[in-house]
Amino acid sequence: MKNYRIVLQYEGTRYQGWQRQGSTENTIQGRLEGLLGKMTGQKVEIIGSGRTDAGVHAACQVANFHLDTEKTPEQIMDYMNAYLPEDIGVIEIKEVGERFHSRLNVKGKTYRYRVLNTKIPHVFDRRYVHVVEEPLDVAAMQKAASYLEGTHDFKAFTSSKRGKKSTVRTIESIRIDQVSASFVWDREIRFTFSGNGFLYHMVRIMAGTLLEVGMHKRKPEEMADILAGGLREKAGELAPARGLTLMEVRY
Amino acid sequence: MKNYRIVLQYEGTRYQGWQRQGSTENTIQGRLEGLLGKMTGQKVEIIGSGRTDAGVHAACQVANFHLDTEKTPEQIMDYMNAYLPEDIGVIEIKEVGERFHSRLNVKGKTYRYRVLNTKIPHVFDRRYVHVVEEPLDVAAMQKAASYLEGTHDFKAFTSSKRGKKSTVRTIESIRIDQVSASFVWDREIRFTFSGNGFLYHMVRIMAGTLLEVGMHKRKPEEMADILAGGLREKAGELAPARGLTLMEVRY
Repeated sequence: MKNYRIVLQYEGTRYQGWQRQGSTENTIQGRLEGLLGKMTGQKVEIIGSGRTDAGVHAACQVANFHLDTEKTPEQIMDYMNAYLPEDIGVIEIKEVGERFHSRLNVKGKTYRYRVLNTKIPHVFDRRYVHVVEEPLDVAAMQKAASYLEGTHDFKAFTSSKRGKKSTVRTIESIRIDQVSASFVWDREIRFTFSGNGFLYHMVRIMAGTLLEVGMHKRKPEEMADILAGGLREKAGELAPARGLTLMEVRY
Repeated sequence: MKNYRIVLQYEGTRYQGWQRQGSTENTIQGRLEGLLGKMTGQKVEIIGSGRTDAGVHAACQVANFHLDTEKTPEQIMDYMNAYLPEDIGVIEIKEVGERFHSRLNVKGKTYRYRVLNTKIPHVFDRRYVHVVEEPLDVAAMQKAASYLEGTHDFKAFTSSKRGKKSTVRTIESIRIDQVSASFVWDREIRFTFSGNGFLYHMVRIMAGTLLEVGMHKRKPEEMADILAGGLREKAGELAPARGLTLMEVRY
């Protein structure tokens, strides 16, 4: 059995997330496993670097799987791209050592959350941005984000109920950039989160909380209390999935 | 009656082009006129700067229409964006003098044709690019394009059969840039055509012909003969609509 490392891109809009939940659900993992099963006649399990929620996109999701095949990695990639739907693409595939595990070996990840801060519609990017019409105070959001950087217990920033696992994570950086997307949409704000790992819903709860700071519904200083209290209800709302994209997985 | 100038963006994928052809077709013009009719109870005609073909996109299409309304331009824009489908957006609307005519007053237009020159799929931009896997010789295409710049009879570069109207047009510039879209897709080639006007299918036939030069199926020097001969069958194939976007209309 050979071990293959695969890099994937997908638009999450019409999927129920990465993780297979049963045979009837429409998930990225399910689609990939179904296709590799068809290609090989074997039952193949794909291990992702982590789950992405329903509606969340990936520019570079990493996964691995074991396969007994005579095909070259390029032939596997061509086969997959020929039969996958247009909203899932294989952008790289190579054979790796048998010890490589796409989830257990992760050193860090980067997510991007895109906010279009205008009521002028952006037709071409509409599936990848969350629209916020209210003016956003970027400096206040940057100040609030600085409280979240570093190593903290992020229990208040997850929807996960499983109480025994550690909720301590390290966020290396949160960048908030106002980008001039074009002459018309000069109000795109991009949140870039890099860290050693993220809890269930953590990026979207952080984004939602920072947006409330940007709208002056909260003060930046509240972040310290929210972290210390560890209560989900003290943090902000879950920001919509459509604005979130997994950008990079580091090993 | 007030005269309104409107700037529109649309993804052409699921439309049969700009121009209304009857009540049953799905066209951009038909959608807009239907909506304004619903808003006002009047029959409204929208004049576009020009047609775009089925499947062609627009980043900045300009149109105008006359209307008798108490609504402010901003209220009209909000109404339209609330009821238009997500793949059509109004990005600007203002009242203009009664002499403004979006088609007759055009001084120039810019179109962009995007080619993804790799077999690695680009999921997020898939609706806006034409994929060419064969290697493309950018320098040869640039040389060929230089023959097309200037004032010429472009009869060989149109699918229009109407023989009486002038087929002379001036192309101010054709730029061909290899852009590094990202770390994975380093092979995007963008053709940018600026001119005082374009005949039916002209941009797509020029793009198709230039791509054949890029694949070494033709020599750059052939462009002079194709222009001089004026025969459609001597030019290259019509490039697919999906790669084409109307970028700017100048007045």
